[in-house]
Amino acid sequence: MYSVQLLPELQLRWAKMQESIQAADADALLISTNVNLYYASGRIFLGYIYLPANGKPYFFVKRPVGLEGENVIYIRKPEQISEYLTEHNIPMPQTLFLEIDSVSYNEYIRLTNILSPKKVLNGTALIRSARTVKTDYELNLIRKSGQQHSALYRHVPAVYQEGMTDLEFSIEIERQARLLGSLGIFRVFGPTMEIFMGSIVSGENADTPSPYDFGLGGEGLDPSLPVGCNGSIIKPGMTVLVDMGGNFTGYMTDMSRTYSLGNISELAVKAHQTSLEIQEAVIAAALPGTAAADLYNIGMRIATKEGLENYFMGHRQQAGFIGHGVGIEINEAPVIAPRSKDILSAGMVFALEPKFVIPHVGAVGIENTFIVTETGCEKVTPGTEEIISLT
Amino acid sequence: MYSVQLLPELQLRWAKMQESIQAADADALLISTNVNLYYASGRIFLGYIYLPANGKPYFFVKRPVGLEGENVIYIRKPEQISEYLTEHNIPMPQTLFLEIDSVSYNEYIRLTNILSPKKVLNGTALIRSARTVKTDYELNLIRKSGQQHSALYRHVPAVYQEGMTDLEFSIEIERQARLLGSLGIFRVFGPTMEIFMGSIVSGENADTPSPYDFGLGGEGLDPSLPVGCNGSIIKPGMTVLVDMGGNFTGYMTDMSRTYSLGNISELAVKAHQTSLEIQEAVIAAALPGTAAADLYNIGMRIATKEGLENYFMGHRQQAGFIGHGVGIEINEAPVIAPRSKDILSAGMVFALEPKFVIPHVGAVGIENTFIVTETGCEKVTPGTEEIISLT
Repeated sequence: MYSVQLLPELQLRWAKMQESIQAADADALLISTNVNLYYASGRIFLGYIYLPANGKPYFFVKRPVGLEGENVIYIRKPEQISEYLTEHNIPMPQTLFLEIDSVSYNEYIRLTNILSPKKVLNGTALIRSARTVKTDYELNLIRKSGQQHSALYRHVPAVYQEGMTDLEFSIEIERQARLLGSLGIFRVFGPTMEIFMGSIVSGENADTPSPYDFGLGGEGLDPSLPVGCNGSIIKPGMTVLVDMGGNFTGYMTDMSRTYSLGNISELAVKAHQTSLEIQEAVIAAALPGTAAADLYNIGMRIATKEGLENYFMGHRQQAGFIGHGVGIEINEAPVIAPRSKDILSAGMVFALEPKFVIPHVGAVGIENTFIVTETGCEKVTPGTEEIISLT
Repeated sequence: MYSVQLLPELQLRWAKMQESIQAADADALLISTNVNLYYASGRIFLGYIYLPANGKPYFFVKRPVGLEGENVIYIRKPEQISEYLTEHNIPMPQTLFLEIDSVSYNEYIRLTNILSPKKVLNGTALIRSARTVKTDYELNLIRKSGQQHSALYRHVPAVYQEGMTDLEFSIEIERQARLLGSLGIFRVFGPTMEIFMGSIVSGENADTPSPYDFGLGGEGLDPSLPVGCNGSIIKPGMTVLVDMGGNFTGYMTDMSRTYSLGNISELAVKAHQTSLEIQEAVIAAALPGTAAADLYNIGMRIATKEGLENYFMGHRQQAGFIGHGVGIEINEAPVIAPRSKDILSAGMVFALEPKFVIPHVGAVGIENTFIVTETGCEKVTPGTEEIISLT
């Protein structure tokens, strides 16, 4: 199931979750979603993890064949979980954490029929909270993703060719990402957000509202995936904002850089400089104990002071946040938004993405991923932050 | 919300779903998942569609801004759906279809608190069933996807270079797919299956079991996505099975072809010919009224007759099906499996993928997407079906 080397790391994660189980006077947590199975076992498998309040977890595996290790039990159906617990004199859970924000209604009914808990608590929130503060092992995976992500952006100007569409540009960047080790898939929490490997918006398209709750919109290539590039040619006077997700290790980083073709408007240049100013001010304040909402307010105050609030985080449609936690998924806690209740602590990881959409020109701004430490933020996605000319 | 040209098409889809709502004596269907919002409106948006048993649907939209049309109502939260119904004297639904196989438990609780139905029925199954038989409009999108998918496979041999890893080969194929218009994302029904754009397996890696319920396995590049290519070099004596998803139009096609480097074993060649034989026999029998389970049995009988049953659909781990419906998602009805209850009818679309895994050599076989018509199957992914040499 997992290597001997990974065991101490997994024990840290189990202990973190078990602390919350115990604090709620609950008996166990049942995990069945891919990202949380990955978090709790170090790999994706088809099945369930039953984590009691004390002691070691049980791994109930449907697929793949061939996994071995302590407490690895092969099953065909979840009903066999309760059979196993009964046979081994493990008491049925009275109070059970289930991933009720993710597991479907029908799956919930099936699982509660099997385990008959008297009380069900929110396991999605429990694991999300455990995942918010990363372990040293996770931070190293994030640093490694960040290194590859930074390397990708160093390649970006070289793949641009005159006359390219935003899509053609995107395809060459995607290829570079894959050559640098991107796993390709982009994991998002919740059922409503979808994207391919990231988004590239340019010119007028940057101002097209999208149904998805990303920092930027874009028409996309088809009504079945209305976000990002739309196949239009990148022309002089436009900016290109490249916002590719980085998933090089199972842990994501987020990073954006702004490119320009020819001369762009003074407004766009000013807005970009304001993004950098916002980044500097927010990161200076981002210490353990700081409220994420305060960080949002710092950003919004600077945008407003510069008279740019109508372009901040979008123009026709504006995003309601300037940053978001990252990890196995792109949208973890903390959320840097006005009504966020998240408080920073050391080991949290977040992407900060102050951006502006300038009509007819495109989007400008910056995005980096930061690790919160006791003494300040560590940037894991370094690289030139000025507007980079493609000509 | 949708163009005038699309209205007659959407009316067909609404009528199909309303027939099922009426047959169940229900009052309405509430749609909130992306693929079904796309099916019922022709585009993705963030929000809900309330489809009454009779009359036109209501589109409750959170994002993007700027959608217009009949019954388009902007809301901030789903509680406003019941406010709207009350204000407009639309009776609350007594019996309501909800997507209970997809909507999370918590979302179910919220929606049923809002609409207070006395009885909830399975809307996931209702829409899945409606989507199984495609309209002419949908069939044309599938044909268009198939054309691009076939074009992609014509490019495959040209992107191979001596000494490539399976990953490097995959990256160049992915790039060609995108240049031909692939939207990139790969939509799968259910929470447990994940993949990037498709899978390429070669040599020993073809026999590595995967947690996902795809036709083939493979170790993958990382335990966070254990499927497909694993970065090993393609060597003489190996086959490479390329199984890239095709999503060029919002509707997917599925297609695989087998490539070889140098001489491969007689067993592998024989198994490939058996795949073609199975395809021919299954497709000859695939007429409206045929049970999908019977099609599976035809395939298994031929594999067994040839003494190849231990390699059929995998070796260390075998898939339990030889085909699957395709549409907006890659795994729709009908399922071509031994215990499938699906019966073919005209307008269904399925991928047939008889494949074998030959230890040390790799996978061989064929996959095409077919439309069921009154007089037989129409292949939408034509192209050479013999093993194609890469040297």
